[in-house]
Amino acid sequence: MIVTVTLNPALDLTYRVDALVPHGTHRVATVAERPGGKGINVAAALRTLGEPVLATGLLGGATGGRVTELLAGEGLPAAFVPIAGETRRTVVVADHDDATGFWEPGPQVTAGEWAAFVARFRDLLGSASVVALSGSLPPGVPVDGYADLIRLAAAAGVRTVLDTSGEALRYGLAAGPDLAKPNAAELCALLEARAPALASDSGPVSGTGPVLDSGPVLDSGSGLGGRGRGLSGAGGGPGGRELADAAVALALGARAVVVSRGPRGVLAVTADGAWRGVPPERIAGNPTGAGDACVAALARGLRDQTPWPELLADAVALSAAAVAAPSAGAVDRDTYRRLLTAVRVSAA
Amino acid sequence: MIVTVTLNPALDLTYRVDALVPHGTHRVATVAERPGGKGINVAAALRTLGEPVLATGLLGGATGGRVTELLAGEGLPAAFVPIAGETRRTVVVADHDDATGFWEPGPQVTAGEWAAFVARFRDLLGSASVVALSGSLPPGVPVDGYADLIRLAAAAGVRTVLDTSGEALRYGLAAGPDLAKPNAAELCALLEARAPALASDSGPVSGTGPVLDSGPVLDSGSGLGGRGRGLSGAGGGPGGRELADAAVALALGARAVVVSRGPRGVLAVTADGAWRGVPPERIAGNPTGAGDACVAALARGLRDQTPWPELLADAVALSAAAVAAPSAGAVDRDTYRRLLTAVRVSAA
Repeated sequence: MIVTVTLNPALDLTYRVDALVPHGTHRVATVAERPGGKGINVAAALRTLGEPVLATGLLGGATGGRVTELLAGEGLPAAFVPIAGETRRTVVVADHDDATGFWEPGPQVTAGEWAAFVARFRDLLGSASVVALSGSLPPGVPVDGYADLIRLAAAAGVRTVLDTSGEALRYGLAAGPDLAKPNAAELCALLEARAPALASDSGPVSGTGPVLDSGPVLDSGSGLGGRGRGLSGAGGGPGGRELADAAVALALGARAVVVSRGPRGVLAVTADGAWRGVPPERIAGNPTGAGDACVAALARGLRDQTPWPELLADAVALSAAAVAAPSAGAVDRDTYRRLLTAVRVSAA
Repeated sequence: MIVTVTLNPALDLTYRVDALVPHGTHRVATVAERPGGKGINVAAALRTLGEPVLATGLLGGATGGRVTELLAGEGLPAAFVPIAGETRRTVVVADHDDATGFWEPGPQVTAGEWAAFVARFRDLLGSASVVALSGSLPPGVPVDGYADLIRLAAAAGVRTVLDTSGEALRYGLAAGPDLAKPNAAELCALLEARAPALASDSGPVSGTGPVLDSGPVLDSGSGLGGRGRGLSGAGGGPGGRELADAAVALALGARAVVVSRGPRGVLAVTADGAWRGVPPERIAGNPTGAGDACVAALARGLRDQTPWPELLADAVALSAAAVAAPSAGAVDRDTYRRLLTAVRVSAA
């Protein structure tokens, strides 16, 4: 069984309006509600693939209750740990042109609730082959919470995929996940914040304050830009910067790194080699959830020890199939089947 | 006991953001949740005045459950009838300049649920002296639903205050409520839609299609503009149009009409005479809920058979006190006490 962890899920609301008028009043034409959160999307994609999966994490309050109802309505196996705080909502207002998003802050999690989750996680490890850890941490969860879960999983012989950003990613990498799946922007942001410490320290840094204060390093054309340029030859042309970033993520502790690059596909750096996987065509649709579909494919591949080139083709095809589906967490089966043999995977 | 009816309540969410950026993504700084709906605001204002009150209406789903929790948290006595549909949310995004509102549509109400509500309403009439009927009707409730409730109340010897708009107001007026409390815009819209039928029919019209098609009548300067101008002399200068509109509302069936006019106070037309009540100063604040505070004062006055001039002063002062309070449903006691003796009430 694959277990997906969503510590900061949401009730995702999509409001359709004619046009967004700032400081106006809008009668919402239709309201769509769905259970939101990256790990929940991963679980939904796996279930669409027919894979045994269980979604866990933290849910609380009336909003959490509604998420539980919606998960049950979708038939998605779930075992969330209750918290006293209210699970957050996200509101996306879709008009004829585009969408406007409002992200509520996550609920406060107590130390006792986090301990209860860790205990639940330990229990679930007994029947898990792979764990996918996705998304942001709500207030109160230790910043190295993912690192703790990764170490527990490793001790139980369960493989881990980590898909998060910022400090949670930095600490998580140090715990040695089997696979990290940042997107290109998340990885870039992580390493830009970290740059000044690169020369002297390979462990996680404990704060970003001094780093953010170091103007010259964050200015374009200095240290980071130079690093990207210096390695672009080694990376084989376009994407050299991302290859360098992925290499640093390995240095930070991940056993393998797959960087999701949107319509440009994925870049993977592993002990077996480095590859790019590129979709054969540009898919039109909703990119929300494409990275989660990628994680779903990667988790399944880790479980089955699928050779990397085959696994990356699967991940690219499933991501594209998520773009082709109308809502996050769904995948379009026809697109998936069509692209599966058409994705180009080549040595990076 | 005063019973307030809210058939289409809401969970009111206020999101504070730095600035609303259309088609951007916003991290919401703070989220405020409160039980929303005009009848609920009326009940909250009455409770602040120390009056025995009970809020009823329809609530459903997880959102309805959250409203129930919030009502209990505020200590507001409530006896809502459960429905299968999800109670709606309203989202107000407040930035430094102003607010942007998103109103979800109300839930579908079944015939059985409406019948269950009517039965509950009949039961509550046994211990009620006045019933306040406020706000819009959710889908599935008969357009003449308020009319039915008003007739049931009258048969039980219970007085009624009606505060709604559009067709629900039109049908409600025909049932002869003791008092109708439209605001000036609602009353104007009602009568503009009705204008073509005025000459031939004093009962409710069954559809607005033919009226909306009759371009010349809705054009400015024709029938309606003429009517307003023609009666402005009889109304004694400014407000003549509103006095005429209020008179027509009486002709449609209400036993008395109080028109709320925002910072300009109220205009009342009753069997005992016509009055204006004007606040002594302009109150700064949040006007949402001011009309509901007005209804609260009117309901109490109906119960106590307070003479109209005194009652109107009370209603104007309580409305102003609601403007001075930060959130809808709350009233500022100091403002209320200060204005109570300062409101000017004069014959219209």
